[in-house]
Amino acid sequence: MQVQVISSANEISASQMVNKTVIVIDVLRTISTIITALAAGAASVTPVETVMEARSLQRAGDLLCGERFCRKITGFDLGNSPFEYEALTVDSRRILLTTTNGTRALLKAMRADYVLAGALLNAGSCARLAHDLRRDVILLCAGAHDQFAAEDGLCAGLMIDRLQSLRQAPVELDDFGLAMLGFYRNNEHSIESAVASSLTGKKLIKLGYKKDVELCTKIDHFNMVPRLNGDSLLLAGGTS
Amino acid sequence: MQVQVISSANEISASQMVNKTVIVIDVLRTISTIITALAAGAASVTPVETVMEARSLQRAGDLLCGERFCRKITGFDLGNSPFEYEALTVDSRRILLTTTNGTRALLKAMRADYVLAGALLNAGSCARLAHDLRRDVILLCAGAHDQFAAEDGLCAGLMIDRLQSLRQAPVELDDFGLAMLGFYRNNEHSIESAVASSLTGKKLIKLGYKKDVELCTKIDHFNMVPRLNGDSLLLAGGTS
Repeated sequence: MQVQVISSANEISASQMVNKTVIVIDVLRTISTIITALAAGAASVTPVETVMEARSLQRAGDLLCGERFCRKITGFDLGNSPFEYEALTVDSRRILLTTTNGTRALLKAMRADYVLAGALLNAGSCARLAHDLRRDVILLCAGAHDQFAAEDGLCAGLMIDRLQSLRQAPVELDDFGLAMLGFYRNNEHSIESAVASSLTGKKLIKLGYKKDVELCTKIDHFNMVPRLNGDSLLLAGGTS
Repeated sequence: MQVQVISSANEISASQMVNKTVIVIDVLRTISTIITALAAGAASVTPVETVMEARSLQRAGDLLCGERFCRKITGFDLGNSPFEYEALTVDSRRILLTTTNGTRALLKAMRADYVLAGALLNAGSCARLAHDLRRDVILLCAGAHDQFAAEDGLCAGLMIDRLQSLRQAPVELDDFGLAMLGFYRNNEHSIESAVASSLTGKKLIKLGYKKDVELCTKIDHFNMVPRLNGDSLLLAGGTS
């Protein structure tokens, strides 16, 4: 199995994804929020690029969700903090989600054979499902504003570590994958503080979202994987 | 002091370099070769982009040097292996050098206040000189064919580690710098095998250049730094 890591969403081209499983990683916070929302009983999450598109797609019962500059969009139901996605609010609802980086990465990945949504919260389950799908894997770090984000790189390294444990044959890594594996292993026992010292980590803490950073660094807190089905993410196993 | 790491030569823009010291890193093998050539007594090394340009710049006494596809260019005096740059051959000669990745990275860095050439061979001296120059630092990994190269990332991480030891105030790192520091620290005691498992490392070993990989991974083998002066690299201290 070959595993390639892409440093940010704008670095991937459609041709690279042919016959691959792409795991889109966005630890702070889009994918962590999507996992939490589906775990809390949301029917599905549809990633959309713009605020206008989200509004135009809304049907009765849908929740309009997302952020710009880390804050909830005016007039939307929910922002991009996993804490907002409680069972009472999201149960059986379709979520239309637009965020600065994560939803764009999901939309860019749509040409792959399988698209999974991964974060620290479900890293082990993601690695296991990717292993079972028997395709070469691209770990697509969403990044922030077209730049590499350290927390996504750490999560990519963790997933490579897990894939190597699952397989009998060694995983073939590209150079960026080698680097992310080393980065993760150097911080294996201090993930929360490493994420807190990243650019986005520091920014969220400054804006009052320290609890989000703490929650989003809980490794394997959930054992499920959102998987793209058409234009929406559903829990893997349930519907595909 | 702020330290930023750029993953490959095509990722840097001229505006980023204003008031900065740029350390161009190319472990396999351009910068390692330049260091070796100057240590062996070459008068200077002029990086040029194309084979034609190298030929047109040649004056009596100059050596035409460089590679394409890791091999010496037809009709040139020397290739890109540090072992070819012996004192008897290069003493007091101007070297015109064109390589696939390293010379292009040097040419892209020319807008910076100071441009230094760094590799594992002179990492400690490079960090010391950058510290003394009192500018924010960009570590520009040359990479290979516009992709990140693991050996350059390891070297960037090593230089950050050294800069942190030299300074009393902490070094401010961007997210890619954090990742490269972790990558280096995870491989601190196995640099040669980490470089040998990189894409370029494996390719050079396959082509019969295992000894080059061994030489280029000797940390702090030299205590001098090539520094750009006009269009040529000279030993720092001697001429500027």
